[in-house]
Amino acid sequence: MEVGGIFLSLVLILLFARVFSEAVAWLKIPPVMGEMLAGIVLGPSLLGWVELNEVIQVLAEIGLILLLFDVGLDTDISKLAEHGYKASIVAVGGFVAPFFLGFACSYWLFGMPLLLSMFIGGTLTATSIGVTVRVLRDLKRHCSHEAQVVLGAAVLDDIFGVVLLALLYEFSVSGGISISNISKVIIFVAIFMMLAPIVAKVMAETIGRYDHQSKIQGLLPTTVITLVLFFAWLAHAVGAPALLGGFAAGLAMSRRFFLPFGAALRAEGDFVLRIGGSMRPIIQLFTPIFFVVVGLSLNLQAVDWGSPVILMMALVFILVAMVSKLVGAFFIQESVHFRWAVGLAMIPRAEVGLIFAELGRISGVFDNDIYAVMIITIAATTVLPPFMLKWFYARFGHHLPNDESGNKHTDG
Amino acid sequence: MEVGGIFLSLVLILLFARVFSEAVAWLKIPPVMGEMLAGIVLGPSLLGWVELNEVIQVLAEIGLILLLFDVGLDTDISKLAEHGYKASIVAVGGFVAPFFLGFACSYWLFGMPLLLSMFIGGTLTATSIGVTVRVLRDLKRHCSHEAQVVLGAAVLDDIFGVVLLALLYEFSVSGGISISNISKVIIFVAIFMMLAPIVAKVMAETIGRYDHQSKIQGLLPTTVITLVLFFAWLAHAVGAPALLGGFAAGLAMSRRFFLPFGAALRAEGDFVLRIGGSMRPIIQLFTPIFFVVVGLSLNLQAVDWGSPVILMMALVFILVAMVSKLVGAFFIQESVHFRWAVGLAMIPRAEVGLIFAELGRISGVFDNDIYAVMIITIAATTVLPPFMLKWFYARFGHHLPNDESGNKHTDG
Repeated sequence: MEVGGIFLSLVLILLFARVFSEAVAWLKIPPVMGEMLAGIVLGPSLLGWVELNEVIQVLAEIGLILLLFDVGLDTDISKLAEHGYKASIVAVGGFVAPFFLGFACSYWLFGMPLLLSMFIGGTLTATSIGVTVRVLRDLKRHCSHEAQVVLGAAVLDDIFGVVLLALLYEFSVSGGISISNISKVIIFVAIFMMLAPIVAKVMAETIGRYDHQSKIQGLLPTTVITLVLFFAWLAHAVGAPALLGGFAAGLAMSRRFFLPFGAALRAEGDFVLRIGGSMRPIIQLFTPIFFVVVGLSLNLQAVDWGSPVILMMALVFILVAMVSKLVGAFFIQESVHFRWAVGLAMIPRAEVGLIFAELGRISGVFDNDIYAVMIITIAATTVLPPFMLKWFYARFGHHLPNDESGNKHTDG
Repeated sequence: MEVGGIFLSLVLILLFARVFSEAVAWLKIPPVMGEMLAGIVLGPSLLGWVELNEVIQVLAEIGLILLLFDVGLDTDISKLAEHGYKASIVAVGGFVAPFFLGFACSYWLFGMPLLLSMFIGGTLTATSIGVTVRVLRDLKRHCSHEAQVVLGAAVLDDIFGVVLLALLYEFSVSGGISISNISKVIIFVAIFMMLAPIVAKVMAETIGRYDHQSKIQGLLPTTVITLVLFFAWLAHAVGAPALLGGFAAGLAMSRRFFLPFGAALRAEGDFVLRIGGSMRPIIQLFTPIFFVVVGLSLNLQAVDWGSPVILMMALVFILVAMVSKLVGAFFIQESVHFRWAVGLAMIPRAEVGLIFAELGRISGVFDNDIYAVMIITIAATTVLPPFMLKWFYARFGHHLPNDESGNKHTDG
């Protein structure tokens, strides 16, 4: 029985994830970087104490699906509506520019294959709401006008990103890029978005009715996990990445998704809170495993550090990743300082970038070198922006409108 | 990628577990029976939709460890102290009698090998606090004098049972019964019981201090799970069953275990509640997987139902299991009705019996036939007693002392 070995691996993964994420959080670096670092330390790059096996990979995959469920649950469509126009410009700019700049550099500058170049472009499109929200909250600017625009844009970018991920995944599985593939994925996503609110309504009514009646505890977490895994399996079965199912389930159960139904569903606000409450510990348990596995999948020792191409690639992609996110912000009609604040806040990739990179690796599109370059790019664009934002606000903060800033608390 | 298959298996396991346990609960049968039934329906006995694989087995094992953690967390040593003398008599009687009667029938009547006979005796010793508490609560007798005696005895039986399990496991792994094996296990359990409160104190102080400081959510569930899995790995590493680690961790963190330290640790009552709150959804998610796997491990189609020996064995063991639990109660100095109430309440085996049976199967001591007989015995001794108790209270309840019964609420 090698069950003991798996337990030890899990203990090391959870322990290192916690210690490293606390340590980097203390240095004001986003915790997700600490979890990835824990994986690099535990994996073949450094200590080699933990080896990837099927069990850990399935747990990481569940973590990824629950992470997307959580992102979906937190996705607040109303944020988009409030500052829709400006947010849309920033989102489209911050999606199109990184994708095409990343693609162009890979395809023409480094002469990479078409699908690989598209995956690199895709990886650079990500925006992490989590990191940005935390930094803005630290600066007490999370209710400011520019924060609202950034949040709206990040929500849109998430949706764009998941659809693009589904497209690229389909291309890598089917081995080709075709109109029929594109339409298949888009039809699937469309069906999901139509089915989601119906499923959510049925779920909410069923669970809401039985949760108090049931004599057996744990109805909420088991039913929600069952639904999330069912959506994940469904997504996988029709050829999309499983995480799309998690995202759809989260979106379907998010608070704002109920709003179109109006007053009839008002009672379920409590239900959404209860879902969050009972799912939170499970999500918190599984998601670190995913980020540690990202680090474990990387073998820094196998990277040819002598090669100038690799260093060059890393530098180019870091530059592209930063500059391209500023593009969208410069199309909105605001002061120069406002544009810079929005642009800087859009840079962090964090978890969404890592999801792209991991999917690129699993589907065989990224080899170890490219994977390492992408991880370095994501790390740089996650670790640096918080410092850049803090410096920017300290230096130019007084030029920004102070209208809605500071005291309101609408923490998502 | 067969990840999709695993997700589908998990969806089926969780869904069937919930539907079947709700259904049997509606019929006033303990829900754990429904979860086992779900496994029988999904497994090779009936539909054959879910096949056991390593991932599901590890998840079930984690479920088992968390179940024992939960049992440990709920173990209330003070219950024992209150009604210590009578509870001890009932516990010792309800442990020794089933073990020796079960062993004697297997060894002499059916001519089974020594270790197998001991495992069968061990399986019959279990007492499920959960089922009994639920039935007594339904009858509004959970604060009665007889309930207190039964609870105290069940707590002791849990501890006896886990130690016996560790002993039998060691015998089956080392292939022999020796004084050195016995002393090794007893020393290990003793060290655990001495280390547990120290670890708990360090944990409580560390987590209590960092839980509010930490900027990263989820400190409590991840740290507690890490500790539980670490104890499980430790137990496995020194040759005991991993679940002993879960039980020790639970016992160490239970509310009453703090009491010996007195007032200095009073603040951690809140901490124990918070542990329960954040661990509950995780425990509720994993434990059904274990019980479904118990059913999945059983192949009823492979059992030779034509053989009179198998039916005979099932009948004998059911009889032994019921009668032997009454023995202890008849040594206490109380009215006849009181003795019957206590004896009947001690019969349910449920989860603890299933843990024994599953460990017997995994370690290769139980073949499919014996496993089936044990499952049938456990099912009968779990499903029948609630009805017997209800009938008994309806018929003879007025003969029992009414002193502490009914209105107080000290639900564990």
